[in-house]
Amino acid sequence: MAPRGMTVLARLAETEQGSPLFRQVCDYILNRMERGEWQVHDKLPSIRLLAGELQVHRLTVFKAYRALADCGRVYVKDKSGYYVSPGLRDEGAAPASAAGAAVATYALTNAMSDIQRLPVEYQFSQALIDPGLLPNLFLSDYVKKVFDLYPKVLGTYSSVQGDGELRETLSSHFRRRHKLQLTAEELIITSGAQQAINLIAGIVLGPMDAVLVERPTYSVALDIFRRAGARLVPVSITPEGYDLEEVEALMRRYKPRMFYMNPTHHNPTGVTVPAVQRKQMVELAERYRCLLVEDDPFRDMYFGAEPPPPFFAYDTEGWVVYISSFSKYVAPGLRICAVACRYPFAERLITAKSLADNGTPLLNQKIFLHYYTSPRLQRHLDKLRIALQVHKEIAEEELAGTGWEWTPPQGGLNLWVKLPETVSVDRLFARCLAESIAFVPGAICDPLGGMTSWLRLSYSFANEHVLRTGIRRLTELAREV
Amino acid sequence: MAPRGMTVLARLAETEQGSPLFRQVCDYILNRMERGEWQVHDKLPSIRLLAGELQVHRLTVFKAYRALADCGRVYVKDKSGYYVSPGLRDEGAAPASAAGAAVATYALTNAMSDIQRLPVEYQFSQALIDPGLLPNLFLSDYVKKVFDLYPKVLGTYSSVQGDGELRETLSSHFRRRHKLQLTAEELIITSGAQQAINLIAGIVLGPMDAVLVERPTYSVALDIFRRAGARLVPVSITPEGYDLEEVEALMRRYKPRMFYMNPTHHNPTGVTVPAVQRKQMVELAERYRCLLVEDDPFRDMYFGAEPPPPFFAYDTEGWVVYISSFSKYVAPGLRICAVACRYPFAERLITAKSLADNGTPLLNQKIFLHYYTSPRLQRHLDKLRIALQVHKEIAEEELAGTGWEWTPPQGGLNLWVKLPETVSVDRLFARCLAESIAFVPGAICDPLGGMTSWLRLSYSFANEHVLRTGIRRLTELAREV
Repeated sequence: MAPRGMTVLARLAETEQGSPLFRQVCDYILNRMERGEWQVHDKLPSIRLLAGELQVHRLTVFKAYRALADCGRVYVKDKSGYYVSPGLRDEGAAPASAAGAAVATYALTNAMSDIQRLPVEYQFSQALIDPGLLPNLFLSDYVKKVFDLYPKVLGTYSSVQGDGELRETLSSHFRRRHKLQLTAEELIITSGAQQAINLIAGIVLGPMDAVLVERPTYSVALDIFRRAGARLVPVSITPEGYDLEEVEALMRRYKPRMFYMNPTHHNPTGVTVPAVQRKQMVELAERYRCLLVEDDPFRDMYFGAEPPPPFFAYDTEGWVVYISSFSKYVAPGLRICAVACRYPFAERLITAKSLADNGTPLLNQKIFLHYYTSPRLQRHLDKLRIALQVHKEIAEEELAGTGWEWTPPQGGLNLWVKLPETVSVDRLFARCLAESIAFVPGAICDPLGGMTSWLRLSYSFANEHVLRTGIRRLTELAREV
Repeated sequence: MAPRGMTVLARLAETEQGSPLFRQVCDYILNRMERGEWQVHDKLPSIRLLAGELQVHRLTVFKAYRALADCGRVYVKDKSGYYVSPGLRDEGAAPASAAGAAVATYALTNAMSDIQRLPVEYQFSQALIDPGLLPNLFLSDYVKKVFDLYPKVLGTYSSVQGDGELRETLSSHFRRRHKLQLTAEELIITSGAQQAINLIAGIVLGPMDAVLVERPTYSVALDIFRRAGARLVPVSITPEGYDLEEVEALMRRYKPRMFYMNPTHHNPTGVTVPAVQRKQMVELAERYRCLLVEDDPFRDMYFGAEPPPPFFAYDTEGWVVYISSFSKYVAPGLRICAVACRYPFAERLITAKSLADNGTPLLNQKIFLHYYTSPRLQRHLDKLRIALQVHKEIAEEELAGTGWEWTPPQGGLNLWVKLPETVSVDRLFARCLAESIAFVPGAICDPLGGMTSWLRLSYSFANEHVLRTGIRRLTELAREV
């Protein structure tokens, strides 16, 4: 049985009132009731008071109280206000037959993962590389050396911060490649970029904290921030990059703790933010004390010119945390990511990592290190870029003539496609799943839950034949719905 | 620069007022100030009100306000009450020269990790197996097969829940070995037991929630629960196991969300809770709706009889979550752990895992699977038990005649030793570090921060020679301080 909070929120999400801020206010109220801070028959704070405390519009609080009243969570006394309903304890939290001790804090969901867990033949929801494009045989053979080099690697824990040899190699790579001022001490190895985002959110964000996010963005990051109880504040991203005046106004108004950004071959739009904006954005971050969390998993997957240096390169004061997860196109199964950041933030991240899992397995780090330093890697990347561009072109060929709109990406793994208003993406999604085709509906990438005419098509995971056949079928289904 | 909350708490911890509950109340107050819920010159809640809200003694709140006043965080107006001090923003949170956007929520510390990160020659602080006792050459050789069996393993993500083949194998092992009713669907693979504890705490615990913990216990778990803002409620553990009347009284009084327990070759005491208590404890858990989180990393490391079945075996209602992390003595570098639990809790754990790192690397799971099912494993375990018993006896020989007290453990990796009151463990610890000897001071294993005459000696990590020499030196140093 789902925890009470989630049940209510799931129901609310089905109404047109399901805006993220509205949901968060409901969540906040339910959470305090759940915690026993607001007990049965307690009078709830006035709408004016709660709106002030949460810094939201009074109408949002009013709607939240109304919705909770509709669900039987609160009741109204005329001319007096809202009260906590009795029977709260019985309704969902702790059914005798299940481990109901587990409690809903803030919403625990992962919409992307739910989609990706569905087994389908035409997999366009995963922004991953087709394993057939990786040099598997070479890698499997090469990797055996690692066991000869480090015969005790399976018996040894890594340090929490990450293997010293790997951190030395990567910091020297970053210095050479991007002219970053960076030492091995300022790198922390995590198990994938997602762990990095989750750890950083855990350090930085608390309930009702504002966090800037691109609109659209990587939906799992949104779910991580929602889980922390944070308020999502959307920042537009277009083929021209950010609107820095908008960003400044948002920073001034919401005092966000951080801005989660994916500015290079952006997921899902493919946009790369120009160099001139990078420098200015770092200045804004300093001025408004907003940590920039730069997620950079697609940097090497460019089709034309190499992208500009990371935001981290423009930062002198420690306001950028740089998440570099190139294991995605080297050996994704290893889950190796490097986070560059300054002290004292680095110290906190190491402690958070020590509590989370006490360090990424040494084996994975050593295998990654040796493949990464092999001459084979550069050749692999050159070939991979070409293969991905071919994939992208196949997808674009199949979409040509549909009337669908997209900006051709200069890199990355996705097409961000707008369908005509006449097509319901939700209905198309349901039809596609029935025919074993998966993509990501745009709405889950939108912090506001809109963008209902958009979808994300990942062209990197399916092989060329499956890609062509699947997208052709997808466009046929779109004509039908 | 440390976040403000931690600085204050570090200072407070040095006073004799540093009881955990007191610290938590301070933390709670600082946290609300940090969040801006209580702003500069706001009047703080009355002692009576806050004590009621937090369900603590008024004296504890009084002491917390006094301590915060001493530190300049709050000020007093006579006959009016306590107020938030100005200057709060300037003092520590966001120095211009650092990524001060990161904020102290609840205390972010890991005392054990801090100790273990010190490089020493005589390593008795790590409850790990000496890599020399693992069949490294066999394992390194054997593992190469995995790459032949799964040539694309480095290019493939695992499912979030964990590899199906591994879950089938492990669930069948648990059914056979412990007569557990368990399907592969009810197993979730995590990267080590610590990740499991951290994910479960994230699902179950919120600020000021009570959590039962053994006294003493695994200190990293305490740090994880503190981080969640939970209240630690200690449960005694002795050679006879638990005092079930005490446990019931605590469950009745504090309504804990969960009980984190390590009932088999308990860390650090080595105690194994008898079978009869296991059944009764599960009944208590059902009655008081308290989730039992059973951490079981030392089960196979017994010296005499095999220990009784896990608590999970007695549970029919889903009140036990079973964390089985036997990779510690199979191939610790892989970090493979299996969590057994019922739905809907399992579903929440999978979602939490999907947000945390999107699944444990497939490579590690496949290597573990193939070693685990090899005939070599059973022989390895038999030899390892003997080797550990020899280690334990060496440690005991060297401690004989010191007047130190311990209960000889029937399994596990640690001795829990009480020194005479005349010896200061803190001073001994400092002396030992200076001579490159590390152990775990008992106080960090105690949720109350007491047990200052105790220490934990792990006899499993150093080889026999280093073990003997180091412990001999340790006892000499103890005579000196």
